[in-house]
Amino acid sequence: MTRSERQLHVQPAPGREGAPTPEPLHPARPTGVARIAVDLLGGDHAPAVVVDGALRACSADPQLHLLLVGPQPVADEIIAMLPDADRSRVTVYDVAGVVGMADPPLRAVRTDTSVRAAAGALADGRVDAVVSAGHSGAAVTAAVHALGRLRGIRRPALTATLPGLSGPVVLLDVGAATEAHASALVQHAVLGTAYARALHGIAAPRVGLLSNGTEPDKGDRARRAAAESLGTGALPGDAAYVGPVEGYDVPLGGPADVIVTDGFTGNVLLKGIEGTYALAGGQEHLTVPRAAALLGVRGTVVICHGRATGADVASGIALAARLHRAGVAAQVAQAVGEGPAASLREVTT
Amino acid sequence: MTRSERQLHVQPAPGREGAPTPEPLHPARPTGVARIAVDLLGGDHAPAVVVDGALRACSADPQLHLLLVGPQPVADEIIAMLPDADRSRVTVYDVAGVVGMADPPLRAVRTDTSVRAAAGALADGRVDAVVSAGHSGAAVTAAVHALGRLRGIRRPALTATLPGLSGPVVLLDVGAATEAHASALVQHAVLGTAYARALHGIAAPRVGLLSNGTEPDKGDRARRAAAESLGTGALPGDAAYVGPVEGYDVPLGGPADVIVTDGFTGNVLLKGIEGTYALAGGQEHLTVPRAAALLGVRGTVVICHGRATGADVASGIALAARLHRAGVAAQVAQAVGEGPAASLREVTT
Repeated sequence: MTRSERQLHVQPAPGREGAPTPEPLHPARPTGVARIAVDLLGGDHAPAVVVDGALRACSADPQLHLLLVGPQPVADEIIAMLPDADRSRVTVYDVAGVVGMADPPLRAVRTDTSVRAAAGALADGRVDAVVSAGHSGAAVTAAVHALGRLRGIRRPALTATLPGLSGPVVLLDVGAATEAHASALVQHAVLGTAYARALHGIAAPRVGLLSNGTEPDKGDRARRAAAESLGTGALPGDAAYVGPVEGYDVPLGGPADVIVTDGFTGNVLLKGIEGTYALAGGQEHLTVPRAAALLGVRGTVVICHGRATGADVASGIALAARLHRAGVAAQVAQAVGEGPAASLREVTT
Repeated sequence: MTRSERQLHVQPAPGREGAPTPEPLHPARPTGVARIAVDLLGGDHAPAVVVDGALRACSADPQLHLLLVGPQPVADEIIAMLPDADRSRVTVYDVAGVVGMADPPLRAVRTDTSVRAAAGALADGRVDAVVSAGHSGAAVTAAVHALGRLRGIRRPALTATLPGLSGPVVLLDVGAATEAHASALVQHAVLGTAYARALHGIAAPRVGLLSNGTEPDKGDRARRAAAESLGTGALPGDAAYVGPVEGYDVPLGGPADVIVTDGFTGNVLLKGIEGTYALAGGQEHLTVPRAAALLGVRGTVVICHGRATGADVASGIALAARLHRAGVAAQVAQAVGEGPAASLREVTT
């Protein structure tokens, strides 16, 4: 019986719904002030869900400072709902321009759009991280334009962590770049390895390349070329390339801590897993993340699902704060041979 | 709230596991003799699981006739376990050559391999359909070599049906061709439409193109080009192209009856859904098929998962019999402008 087979025949534990409970993804972390720019105009249901998410995040984390980037009246609505004592933690960056879900992503180079202005505030050191629930292509464009890419990284990657049976599974790219290129797959393996180490404390991440089988003839051209590079020492430090992994291995985990794929396949798979959980029903501890970190740019950027709820936006803000506090962006930058990113200057507020 | 959002927030029904029960995939169908060639040497656990599957299939379907293709001793094992009355329904085609999971698929052009011999028996009219649980690349190679492709079809597609909330969802390709080409996506839309009509009785199938979002800038080059063709009338009859669909829509169903993708993405997604069901646990009515029909060749070919169990092989044999009885191959051939396939000659046993 192979490893993957064993995993597929998961024996239901005697718990509530007959399924084992994966480890929690967000163990306790050091606190400290985290200054987060929030794009008030990003997402299908902005600004309502962003207002909701910002309020939830403020109430959950007393060390959080928010820069609300969007129209003053929307920001005022949030401030009015906050307890007096919390209002000093919120400031406003009045910007009216929006990049709608149907707009071309390139519109996000305009500094009068909320997503670009939020990324600009990060580039200027006014905040430690930025969160947008908008058009992911627009958020990537704004981040690249305002912050720049890390050295040697051609395509940034959206990075999501799923709860595997025996620990977190870092999946990237889940939607930033839709064409599969071997060089990007290898770069993303390096980024994902540093992320797994910095955020999840996995000292020696095992890296798998998502494919349609584990036999040597499987995979498309990009996958076969990437496998060759990964198999001959492209990964830094103690990371180990474990070879091709399959679709099962993303929700279940087991063979790899970091699973690398192109943004098209990763996006389709993540949403497929999400739909399957919805159909299976009633498994609240089994879920997919609706916020992803953008790796490969010089700073801490979190992009939420375009259909994010208020709770999703709040979890995106919490992820951004956690990434900042754990110094993830600096460690990812170091992994590709750069010093700390601009966004990781000492907080002085 | 969009259609997809509504579907994602599935309200648990009061049933056993809190999830709604999808419609059964296999309603009653006309019976009649079905002669199926079974590759005894295909799969990770051949011949044991194939022996088990053949026995189960024989016992479940009294109108089934099997041609066991493989070494005589293995076939004898099956025959010895059958009740006397059933033995006349089983014949043996003694072939010793095997294409192992690690062998190159091209080995399957050799007529002394079990998978190629089984496909040859179909080409010769000795059987109505062939089932292999082996190396899918080898089975595709053997089928193309023995039967030929349908007119205008460059790449055959493995086609699986999933149980959506409101009816079957036909997904193709789930693993035959790993490079994404716009022309193949369009051809597969035509094949999938004919399959949904012939097998599932969907008179006017709605066809969706799997993508990483529904906005116009989403999808890779192949998807954007295919969308253009599909949007301008590439589909026959009453089929309708409904536009891009997302990963959620495959397990849940709803926007489309037929969902088209490349074999790499389809394979990864199907296995991701399978792993998610395994993790969710205890939902026996929620499952993914472990047998797929190969569309685009001139005959009825079913390929089971390389890790198929005996029950999976039996369900693959049952699918092959059902495809034969419903005349699916002939209807698919007609949809691409061909007459009935060679395999659909009148049964005379």
